[in-house]
Amino acid sequence: MVMGVDPGLITTGYGILEVKGEKVILLEGGVVKTDSGKELSLRLEQIFNGISSVLDEFHPEVVAVEKLYSHYKHPRTAIMMGHARGVIYLAASLRKIPVVSYGATEIKKSITGRGRASKEQVQYMMARELGLSGLPKPYDVSDALAIALTHLNMRKKYVI
Amino acid sequence: MVMGVDPGLITTGYGILEVKGEKVILLEGGVVKTDSGKELSLRLEQIFNGISSVLDEFHPEVVAVEKLYSHYKHPRTAIMMGHARGVIYLAASLRKIPVVSYGATEIKKSITGRGRASKEQVQYMMARELGLSGLPKPYDVSDALAIALTHLNMRKKYVI
Repeated sequence: MVMGVDPGLITTGYGILEVKGEKVILLEGGVVKTDSGKELSLRLEQIFNGISSVLDEFHPEVVAVEKLYSHYKHPRTAIMMGHARGVIYLAASLRKIPVVSYGATEIKKSITGRGRASKEQVQYMMARELGLSGLPKPYDVSDALAIALTHLNMRKKYVI
Repeated sequence: MVMGVDPGLITTGYGILEVKGEKVILLEGGVVKTDSGKELSLRLEQIFNGISSVLDEFHPEVVAVEKLYSHYKHPRTAIMMGHARGVIYLAASLRKIPVVSYGATEIKKSITGRGRASKEQVQYMMARELGLSGLPKPYDVSDALAIALTHLNMRKKYVI
């Protein structure tokens, strides 16, 4: 079982996937939203508590997140994302759950076949791959699921 | 009592200051170093545990850190610092200790009278202000102490 996480200070998306035979099953998808009126420390605590409770409910073997880029258009936003990412790594580490990361291009390529695919395309493919009746929303969730599925694809765990 | 923290993924400096009458007393200064050979999640856990144990020993009323800039020369390093900063905020928040932040220029101005002072100058002034027999080292510690003292200066707590 793998938990994909798409960290953000405002919205952190997550998704839990499990391999059953040759199928990949969606167990859970959701977001941890923080209260923008609250102080940074309380918002980080909300993210930490939210992710911790999902980890404690599902006990995934691994947490998968997106790798950091080398360049960001909005460095300040990226640093705030770093704060969120930090408490997510910590939540996993305190439970001895390893964290792996994959590059954005690698994820898109793995899911859609194209390294520069749009979020819509990733969302569409995730619905198809997981056999969902509707699109996984918002993008924070579909992106988190894509990271989790990339991990399974990379490990070829569900291919015999 | 205030704890100043200078977050970094490699070295996080901290310092605890207390007001006694009209004097400011250095109670503790030190660093939390992380093992660069270890994974990010374990390094963040080291920082979280290190800062948590200092908080639990001294129970400061407030934690003071440096504000984020709007621009960074090395965005990737800044994002990694953001990870460290995130777990420090969390350690404080889990103990209901508020976190305050001051701008780099504000801190240097408060300590040395000049907003663009060097680290050496800050270090020298901290030794003088705290009546230390030697310079507080490394810069991670002198910077952390400067942040803590800025907080006390701003609140004018020790001026009657």
